[in-house]
Amino acid sequence: MTSPRVLDVGRWEPNASGRLRQAAMELYLERGFEQTTVAEISERAGLTARTFFRHFADKREVLFAGSGSLQEQLVGALAGAPDSASPMEAISAALAAAATVLGQHREYSRQRQSVIAANVELQERELIKLASLAVALAAGLRRRGVDDANASLAAEAGVAVLRVAFERWVSETEDQDLLQVIRESLDQLRTLTADG
Amino acid sequence: MTSPRVLDVGRWEPNASGRLRQAAMELYLERGFEQTTVAEISERAGLTARTFFRHFADKREVLFAGSGSLQEQLVGALAGAPDSASPMEAISAALAAAATVLGQHREYSRQRQSVIAANVELQERELIKLASLAVALAAGLRRRGVDDANASLAAEAGVAVLRVAFERWVSETEDQDLLQVIRESLDQLRTLTADG
Repeated sequence: MTSPRVLDVGRWEPNASGRLRQAAMELYLERGFEQTTVAEISERAGLTARTFFRHFADKREVLFAGSGSLQEQLVGALAGAPDSASPMEAISAALAAAATVLGQHREYSRQRQSVIAANVELQERELIKLASLAVALAAGLRRRGVDDANASLAAEAGVAVLRVAFERWVSETEDQDLLQVIRESLDQLRTLTADG
Repeated sequence: MTSPRVLDVGRWEPNASGRLRQAAMELYLERGFEQTTVAEISERAGLTARTFFRHFADKREVLFAGSGSLQEQLVGALAGAPDSASPMEAISAALAAAATVLGQHREYSRQRQSVIAANVELQERELIKLASLAVALAAGLRRRGVDDANASLAAEAGVAVLRVAFERWVSETEDQDLLQVIRESLDQLRTLTADG
């Protein structure tokens, strides 16, 4: 005796997560984040709300679902930097990993940025994710033997560079390499502090 | 015909705001931020809840009431830096103003820090205030003719230095000059980026 409901629990939906993200982004851009419901996102994706909640805790998390894995990759790249690397060289390795992950999705990034810019709650969420990234990078530097103050400073500086470079990259009219923009921003920070 | 209620609206309470802050801090430390009510804070201060709400929007704002005026003073110091000052020199002038304001209240700062560290909502609020400070400093640098990317980088770096220096200053066992700790942190950031 199998009911449709029971079947639905295990039903395989090809790329459900990607379809939900796409549908959510379309709706957030069309009518705004606040005016969009999970029911509408699921319907647009041709899926059920049940399936939505198997992939995302709520409509906000659709926009932030990748940040945990991004953070893991950055922390992994930091740990993988050569022992001889200085703190900022290790941070640069982490930022290069960020460029590899984020650099493939410029149009999605641009859309996401405009949705976030329109909503204070989302901006706050983004800030908290970036702060959590800085904390994770500082912990990674301490594991490399860097002292507290230097670890925090290098991590915060790295996140500042990532954020400024990312915003520049997303808003540029011409297609640029994110890694290149990150390197330029690191150089800018070096010049700024040398002249300070 | 004057009722006590009408009289109360305009009643002058000597240093009501300071007494409420003091009472709130005592209670936050004794029983935790979440477990403390506005009624209890007011009672401890020997004042009414009515008086509390003339000074603070809610019990959270008791901890953040000074941040608007701190931001104004930093932005003012930035604007007052000589025309010849580099972006990071202007940021240093702003941080020196922060040291003057914050440096007088080490014990209060230490207590506030420990209350905030124990509560996620307060940590998020603090992050948002710091992000708002970075945005205000970047705007101040743009008004000095600094381009977008350099203004954002210098402002974010400045806030990172302030945060790291402040944490060091608060947690040091011996009494140190906050301005001195800020200068050391600026030097550290310069060395870090030069080696990056």
